[in-house]
Amino acid sequence: MANKFIVGVMGPGENATPDQNRIAYQLGSAIAEQGWITLTGGRSFGVMDAALRGAAENDGLTIGILPTENAKGSSKYASIKIVTGLGGARNQISIMSSHALVICGMSAGTASEVSMALKADKKVILLNQDEATVSFFKKIGSYKVMEATTVEEAISKIKEYLSVSHPVMPE
Amino acid sequence: MANKFIVGVMGPGENATPDQNRIAYQLGSAIAEQGWITLTGGRSFGVMDAALRGAAENDGLTIGILPTENAKGSSKYASIKIVTGLGGARNQISIMSSHALVICGMSAGTASEVSMALKADKKVILLNQDEATVSFFKKIGSYKVMEATTVEEAISKIKEYLSVSHPVMPE
Amino acid sequence: MANKFIVGVMGPGENATPDQNRIAYQLGSAIAEQGWITLTGGRSFGVMDAALRGAAENDGLTIGILPTENAKGSSKYASIKIVTGLGGARNQISIMSSHALVICGMSAGTASEVSMALKADKKVILLNQDEATVSFFKKIGSYKVMEATTVEEAISKIKEYLSVSHPVMPE
Amino acid sequence: MANKFIVGVMGPGENATPDQNRIAYQLGSAIAEQGWITLTGGRSFGVMDAALRGAAENDGLTIGILPTENAKGSSKYASIKIVTGLGGARNQISIMSSHALVICGMSAGTASEVSMALKADKKVILLNQDEATVSFFKKIGSYKVMEATTVEEAISKIKEYLSVSHPVMPE
Repeated sequence: MANKFIVGVMGPGENATPDQNRIAYQLGSAIAEQGWITLTGGRSFGVMDAALRGAAENDGLTIGILPTENAKGSSKYASIKIVTGLGGARNQISIMSSHALVICGMSAGTASEVSMALKADKKVILLNQDEATVSFFKKIGSYKVMEATTVEEAISKIKEYLSVSHPVMPE
Repeated sequence: MANKFIVGVMGPGENATPDQNRIAYQLGSAIAEQGWITLTGGRSFGVMDAALRGAAENDGLTIGILPTENAKGSSKYASIKIVTGLGGARNQISIMSSHALVICGMSAGTASEVSMALKADKKVILLNQDEATVSFFKKIGSYKVMEATTVEEAISKIKEYLSVSHPVMPE
Repeated sequence: MANKFIVGVMGPGENATPDQNRIAYQLGSAIAEQGWITLTGGRSFGVMDAALRGAAENDGLTIGILPTENAKGSSKYASIKIVTGLGGARNQISIMSSHALVICGMSAGTASEVSMALKADKKVILLNQDEATVSFFKKIGSYKVMEATTVEEAISKIKEYLSVSHPVMPE
Repeated sequence: MANKFIVGVMGPGENATPDQNRIAYQLGSAIAEQGWITLTGGRSFGVMDAALRGAAENDGLTIGILPTENAKGSSKYASIKIVTGLGGARNQISIMSSHALVICGMSAGTASEVSMALKADKKVILLNQDEATVSFFKKIGSYKVMEATTVEEAISKIKEYLSVSHPVMPE
């Protein structure tokens, strides 16, 4: 089995809106259709759960990076559960283990993930974010920050990035 | 010895401007004058080093939360060196161990610290930040985000916060 | 895709003996034959690499929990690379993410993993360990510590454990 | 304020015996008398709490490296509370931040700390440990493992180590 391309989907947990969950589900589905792995924070609610469900229901491999010391409270759509016991510090692992990231919704936790991703030189796709968010992250992340207004556009930006920068699967 | 009040000073490392370093030094001095502990990421450059130097040269107790596996490359102004070996994930510890935070300059790493601090319900004082930065963090952190334009104003906001919310030293 | 059963294989890295590497390879092969996932510390040498190679060459799914900030230096037999950037602290994640552990060889790092596993109430199979090692870990881990002298015996102890304690796939 | 020499005291938490707590208290007192800092896991019970109390009641500076996300449940004798939110993974920080370690009592958690300390090339003093424990750790840690039967002997071994290996305060 070759190295797998992993797309992280990050967004609010308990405070995710129905719209954000719906879009996260579509994102997971679309990532699975590409044969990519979907990775999230792995809990049983919010964008984390919705993206994994979208991927799992479309036969995608799914990974949940759990903050807890065991798998209680994890999404049942996470086929591989990485149990960290690190609380919010597990966000670093989600970011570093993803080859590209799509951000769906915004919160303090999500903002820390976007910032860490930019620090780790990851490509970050801001999906449907407002102007204050986009302008702030472009200021600190410049070319690493991309925007998309639809799931299709997000997927196509990842493919473009893969074909240009990583003709071979990235390490 | 009673519990000590700890003020974290966060800002750019290698890319800090001379102005940011100068202000960080003043911040450390002012924190020490209050009898508070100054805490930073503990490396030997940038805002981390400057704030510790300001505090140490004014007889303040200083703590460096190091990303490395030993104390090599740490600020010589960190009197207590917490060696984490966790890389950037040590930022969570800097945030959680501080009772209040002052942000001096901005970068992707700094933005992740501000975001984590808001998630952990810490008071964050944005010192001399531009409008895009302030409006983004107010959007995700609301009342927890405060602004200051001078070191004196930052100190006075911390004192106000202490007197109102924490008549007794915080846990 | 249902939850997968994950077996962690732990042992020395650079100082692994040829015998330990040979047995780790057999362990990975045998784990893959059971349809289980093999998980290790994910680097390109020692027991970590050998177990992943054994699993990968027998069509098993493999996970490497990397200490580094990117995938450089990782085993090419790790199909899923969890990049932690946490240095040795990633051992906690290896332990907590495994449903059972087999210990092949001994070193300070390996001993910390066995100890953490016992603290996290995981079943630990000591494969071919000397008397001082077995008696120490039985003293601190009692019933959670099992011994095996062959790869077959290790696998059969895991199956026994699964059938008795976890008739359904564990969380 | 110059760099401070930090001695970590590690041992059981909830399952510490009265004898272990009594000796840990004496250890903390003796460390404080030397002008050294006492560092433990920082919780309000067991060896962690007793050593900090011994140090604090003898005017020593004390550090608690807390596993929790805030200071609830921490020892009131920890004058500096490092809040990690990392659960058991905070043990790595306790180890790496200590210049020497004294082990008082044994448990799975304590064994992981001794193992990590040996891996990080720290001097470890096993205080009053049984034969199985000593012979196991000597096997994996060789010259880094020292034994002591009294608190005085432990302190004197640390002083010897300081004078021989670190005529100047260690980084």
